[in-house]
Amino acid sequence: MSAGSRASWRTPERREAAMAMALQGVTSMVNAGAMSGSGNLMDFLDEPFPDVGTYEDFHTIDWLREKSRDTDRHRKITSKSKESIWEFIKSLLDAWSGWVVMLLIGLLAGTLAGVIDLAVDWMTDLKEGVCLSAFWYSHEQCCWTSNETTFEDRDKCPLWQKWSELLVNQSEGASAYILNYLMYILWALLFAFLAVSLVRVFAPYACGSGIPEIKTILSGFIIRGYLGKWTLLIKTVTLVLVVSSGLSLGKEGPLVHVACCCGNFFSSLFSKYSKNEGKRREVLSAAAAAGVSVAFGAPIGGVLFSLEEVSYYFPLKTLWRSFFAALVAAFTLRSINPFGNSRLVLFYVEYHTPWYMAELFPFILLGVFGGLWGTLFIRCNIAWCRRRKTTRLGKYPVLEVIVVTAITAIIAYPNPYTRRSTSELISELFNDCGALESSQLCDYINDPNMTRPVDDIPDRPAGVGVYTAMWQLALALVFKIVITIFTFGMKIPSGLFIPSMAVGAMAGRMVGIGVEQLAYHHHDWIVFRNWCRPGADCVTPGLYAMVGAAACLGGVTRMTVSLVVIMFELTGGLEYIVPLMAAAVTSKWVADAFGKEGIYEAHIHLNGYPFLDVKDEFTHRTLATDVMRPRRGEPPLSVLTQDSMTVEDVETLIKETDYNGFPVVVSRDSERLIGFAQRRELILAIKNARQRQEGIVSNSILYFTEEPPELPANSPHPLKLRRVLNLSPFTVTDHTPMETVVDIFRKLGLRQCLVTRSGRLLGIITKKDVLRHMAQMANQDPESIMFN
Amino acid sequence: MSAGSRASWRTPERREAAMAMALQGVTSMVNAGAMSGSGNLMDFLDEPFPDVGTYEDFHTIDWLREKSRDTDRHRKITSKSKESIWEFIKSLLDAWSGWVVMLLIGLLAGTLAGVIDLAVDWMTDLKEGVCLSAFWYSHEQCCWTSNETTFEDRDKCPLWQKWSELLVNQSEGASAYILNYLMYILWALLFAFLAVSLVRVFAPYACGSGIPEIKTILSGFIIRGYLGKWTLLIKTVTLVLVVSSGLSLGKEGPLVHVACCCGNFFSSLFSKYSKNEGKRREVLSAAAAAGVSVAFGAPIGGVLFSLEEVSYYFPLKTLWRSFFAALVAAFTLRSINPFGNSRLVLFYVEYHTPWYMAELFPFILLGVFGGLWGTLFIRCNIAWCRRRKTTRLGKYPVLEVIVVTAITAIIAYPNPYTRRSTSELISELFNDCGALESSQLCDYINDPNMTRPVDDIPDRPAGVGVYTAMWQLALALVFKIVITIFTFGMKIPSGLFIPSMAVGAMAGRMVGIGVEQLAYHHHDWIVFRNWCRPGADCVTPGLYAMVGAAACLGGVTRMTVSLVVIMFELTGGLEYIVPLMAAAVTSKWVADAFGKEGIYEAHIHLNGYPFLDVKDEFTHRTLATDVMRPRRGEPPLSVLTQDSMTVEDVETLIKETDYNGFPVVVSRDSERLIGFAQRRELILAIKNARQRQEGIVSNSILYFTEEPPELPANSPHPLKLRRVLNLSPFTVTDHTPMETVVDIFRKLGLRQCLVTRSGRLLGIITKKDVLRHMAQMANQDPESIMFN
Repeated sequence: MSAGSRASWRTPERREAAMAMALQGVTSMVNAGAMSGSGNLMDFLDEPFPDVGTYEDFHTIDWLREKSRDTDRHRKITSKSKESIWEFIKSLLDAWSGWVVMLLIGLLAGTLAGVIDLAVDWMTDLKEGVCLSAFWYSHEQCCWTSNETTFEDRDKCPLWQKWSELLVNQSEGASAYILNYLMYILWALLFAFLAVSLVRVFAPYACGSGIPEIKTILSGFIIRGYLGKWTLLIKTVTLVLVVSSGLSLGKEGPLVHVACCCGNFFSSLFSKYSKNEGKRREVLSAAAAAGVSVAFGAPIGGVLFSLEEVSYYFPLKTLWRSFFAALVAAFTLRSINPFGNSRLVLFYVEYHTPWYMAELFPFILLGVFGGLWGTLFIRCNIAWCRRRKTTRLGKYPVLEVIVVTAITAIIAYPNPYTRRSTSELISELFNDCGALESSQLCDYINDPNMTRPVDDIPDRPAGVGVYTAMWQLALALVFKIVITIFTFGMKIPSGLFIPSMAVGAMAGRMVGIGVEQLAYHHHDWIVFRNWCRPGADCVTPGLYAMVGAAACLGGVTRMTVSLVVIMFELTGGLEYIVPLMAAAVTSKWVADAFGKEGIYEAHIHLNGYPFLDVKDEFTHRTLATDVMRPRRGEPPLSVLTQDSMTVEDVETLIKETDYNGFPVVVSRDSERLIGFAQRRELILAIKNARQRQEGIVSNSILYFTEEPPELPANSPHPLKLRRVLNLSPFTVTDHTPMETVVDIFRKLGLRQCLVTRSGRLLGIITKKDVLRHMAQMANQDPESIMFN
Repeated sequence: MSAGSRASWRTPERREAAMAMALQGVTSMVNAGAMSGSGNLMDFLDEPFPDVGTYEDFHTIDWLREKSRDTDRHRKITSKSKESIWEFIKSLLDAWSGWVVMLLIGLLAGTLAGVIDLAVDWMTDLKEGVCLSAFWYSHEQCCWTSNETTFEDRDKCPLWQKWSELLVNQSEGASAYILNYLMYILWALLFAFLAVSLVRVFAPYACGSGIPEIKTILSGFIIRGYLGKWTLLIKTVTLVLVVSSGLSLGKEGPLVHVACCCGNFFSSLFSKYSKNEGKRREVLSAAAAAGVSVAFGAPIGGVLFSLEEVSYYFPLKTLWRSFFAALVAAFTLRSINPFGNSRLVLFYVEYHTPWYMAELFPFILLGVFGGLWGTLFIRCNIAWCRRRKTTRLGKYPVLEVIVVTAITAIIAYPNPYTRRSTSELISELFNDCGALESSQLCDYINDPNMTRPVDDIPDRPAGVGVYTAMWQLALALVFKIVITIFTFGMKIPSGLFIPSMAVGAMAGRMVGIGVEQLAYHHHDWIVFRNWCRPGADCVTPGLYAMVGAAACLGGVTRMTVSLVVIMFELTGGLEYIVPLMAAAVTSKWVADAFGKEGIYEAHIHLNGYPFLDVKDEFTHRTLATDVMRPRRGEPPLSVLTQDSMTVEDVETLIKETDYNGFPVVVSRDSERLIGFAQRRELILAIKNARQRQEGIVSNSILYFTEEPPELPANSPHPLKLRRVLNLSPFTVTDHTPMETVVDIFRKLGLRQCLVTRSGRLLGIITKKDVLRHMAQMANQDPESIMFN
């Protein structure tokens, strides 16, 4: 389309057709079918090559190209929709398919979350006993159905029998205790063994939390099967098993993975999403939001989590759709009502007491603790995971899981705070002590003369139970901290939210009780005098537990706004945003002071995924010329010329290199860039031409220009490959600062970028080169970037 | 830095220095002071030119360049911080200045919002009467301070006197009514006249809602004075006046403008923000969030509003800081407690009754109404504003305001629903009818036999008061719809949120009462049978009002998630998200069917701001070659050559053209691009050189290369201008689809982009060209893009 040819455009139609022709270079022939009207302008190859436009496994997608392909598809449907009623309806269906997919994802993710909750509830109780009336009832369901129980002894109902009662008819005594202990360990081992075996045999991708991989996939990487149907099934089943086994892990991260699998499954039903990797990732972003929504009962927090933590490309349309999916999922889960409290999570709480400015100090202390825990956890966990990868340890994943489960069960059972499920523990720690509370944590010494309404209990001195609980909590805290480091990263589904929150909640509750007792016994101290009079209810230890949980979760994941919003949705009140935020900010600052990476980024680096983090700031003064290939001393760049190479030359080049594509230049002397050809498409085009076109032999000249080159009379028929040529490759000059190049790669989602000076091609920068350079500048081992 | 010169790099230090040199082209010499160490590599001009790096009024900023400048600044501070303790402290202060600015913005925005609320409260009541004990008390404050009032007759306290009581000692009767009516109109006219005069004389930018301009500014446009201190002061004062005058407008949009003025003011105190237009815009985004936070008492909604509606470049760091600013602002406002209800807004409500599936139908109907209202309002308002711009009408802004105020006051006074302030009206419409409610809207016929707790009142038949209220509401609705169209866009501060919500709330309340009465009288209809038994409290008309308000606000602004979140923060319960979302989605779909533009985008287009909307999808098949200048038949592109033009040539070129910059090519024959020079910097550099450098005369050769060109012996001293050369201009090929070009302009925030083919420079595309092309493809008048 030179200046001369433009003059020949007479009618708008021809112009449009010619433009469309030119666009083919970008859209890579996928929609060539739509072009059949402009016959005289067509290339030799009428049909699109099969498989063009899909990517290979462990490769990076080109966001610009995917977007352009979707626009083409959309344009085609819009123009067709005017032809007939049927096409119009089809275009409407296409426009609505996004909402339908969101609805389906919400429904399935909510249902799965409900089923998982119910199954975990039952199987956790199965470790302690069984319901005689129906073995599939959990402890609570069993006792609810038996009529004779009153509120007080709802924990002791005849239909629910501990294993010792059932097997040897003893409910008390040392032998009963030991029998129950053994049954607890056995069930835990059975569940864990089943889980790890299922993962090993059927779906190796089902292990871990999945969030690092989902972040990588959403940034444009292809990992086939990671979001497949088998992964969905096995992850759901094994998640129930591992959570029930009592291991120190949570279901929240894996639920995000499960929701993304749902998203991938439903997007494969609609060609709009299944055939476009960019559009598919929009669906997956929304699915991640739905996953967090059901994990925490926080639809808004889920959307923000997806936006802040997981997603890469998040247009406003996706924001709105994510919100819809998150809401549908939350309401589905609510209709299932797995916890019987009309709430979406086990640990929903509502406080009614205000907090005071002076309390900010312990809250900030908890933030510091959360930051330190985050740093400690990330360092130790990464060190352990690296050891697992590099030593013989990694060869026995089943044994590892069995050993860790056994240790967990043996140590956890004697301590009431580790024996129960972690969610229940968090729930108890978050709860304020009411008048009817039977927990050890609420064993305060009541003033017999005081007659007040039950919901406004003043601060009281701690009783024996509270002191016992403090010791047990301290032991449980140490145990949780250590065992979580070894648990996260094993070959089973494992989330990190719940253990982190548990660590923070335990620390927070202890601090809270400490402050409460201090305030009770020292009303006259200056710090307490202004806000805590005798007989007042000034300190809420449950609030401290919640603040601690937020701090620890923030320290590990480095979430900020989404964390506070999730916590805000848990408590349902704006009042506590300031304490939560103070703790979250402190925790992030403290943790960031020791290392910028959150646990997910650390695992991404550990696994060497090519992930270009939006949050990292690149501030070095290097230039594109320092990063591009070929470097000085390396062989020159492999290029194609526009009209002087033979089929054989190109085939040899393809065979001898493994580059993803080749720049096309005018000639080797001038090195002026005219375009870029993808390896995959070159191979397909040549293969197709050799099979279908007559006269194409090894020494046929390949040309990328509009007109065939002038050849000697007896030379074989030339092969036109303009169609596989991307006429608008992305270029930067060699003087472009790498900072700008990194920004371009991030924002436009490029795979590669060509480097020129004064129009001459100098080299190429791929995403991998950028990542390697960034690792190098950060003094990391650049070879840790493995894939692609 | 040719391939040859690279070979001479021996030590890393020299290499770094050379890189830094090269970077100068990008960073445009602002930090030239930092370079003084590498003397032998320096240009002739040691000192940075004054004013370089700032932009002219009504020009677009270059985001990439601003970012790069900030990185340089940061790098400089980091390297200096290792030199001494003092520099280290300075670097810490610099790192913390972002948070300090946020804190200050939050405090000031919250305080201003509180002051505005208090003043509006007093002045609105002043239209009706005055407090005898202290004239600065509002009606409510006056009656609270007088001791003798009980709960029942709190509206009639002796200290509060209506004007008729004060002036002619009559409280009842026709003449008292007429006197009060006249006083009401007089006060309204006085307030409005004062407001429009203040705006005219002191700060013309203080008019309107400000959101369209803020959107444009945040997208990178410079409008000097729009966020200045005078605008802040005058907008605050006039906002109080116009809201008190009873005009059909709200304070929410202007509050965002006020908060942004605060943001601009505080960012001018820190050089980090005052000297960098990109960083300043990050602060402004956060300030916008703080503005919405105090306008609606919705910190999270504020952040999402800033993200979804206002901001252009919103990195995650800004998200977190916005949230902080929004929270501080909300808590400041809460400490001031202007409404005396411990809430941030007048119309905070909490419902306790559930909603039923069948009610979704009326909710969706309300959504349709909202969409239709949005379309009607935008079309009529834009038509009227265009008429104001193009006819003589626009020449009499004061008269226009006076006339509209008079009409508003005359029609509003007789109807109790339009006489009071719009916020109070919305509050009453949102409220559920309790047992103690004295409002006409709650005049139901009570069943005397029924003795139930007061907070669970069943549906009752409507009394006479309700039917009267329905008529008055219907009249008020029509009046509001018509008058708002004429009010929005006058030369006074005017927000749109409150009138839109009022329209929706009135329609919603009427629908709600209708459904309620239908359900009461026809329990046996199939639609009601399942969920509404006699004696049950099934329908909450207040909820319908809220849903209607959300629908109408959504129809006008096309907000989605932020709208629902704001409404969710108003009600404080997840239960009503589904009704709100159903209405918001319907309203957006209906409104979008008639036109994609929200009211802010429509006003941006009307005013011709160069705003490149992130939401618009560009789907046409045009190429860069169709958009670039020069077009066919136009004179060739004005370019500079790298070493053959004289100072005079360049000065002539600058004088004869008004381009913002010139591409620099190797020579006119080869047209190979080597860089881009900004007009502003060229002018400054030549001026500086002529003043300070000896031997620079009109026929000195200008050169942009590293080495001076070989010149004849007697030629004047050449002038090296490599420093003003941007060595990494952005280029695309002529075959690049415009879709991609638009994407690049949006995501990277470019000012211009050069078009090449095979390394030869063909033309240039500026942001204005892109906007003009987009308008052309959307069949709009391309000449409506005026600025820049």
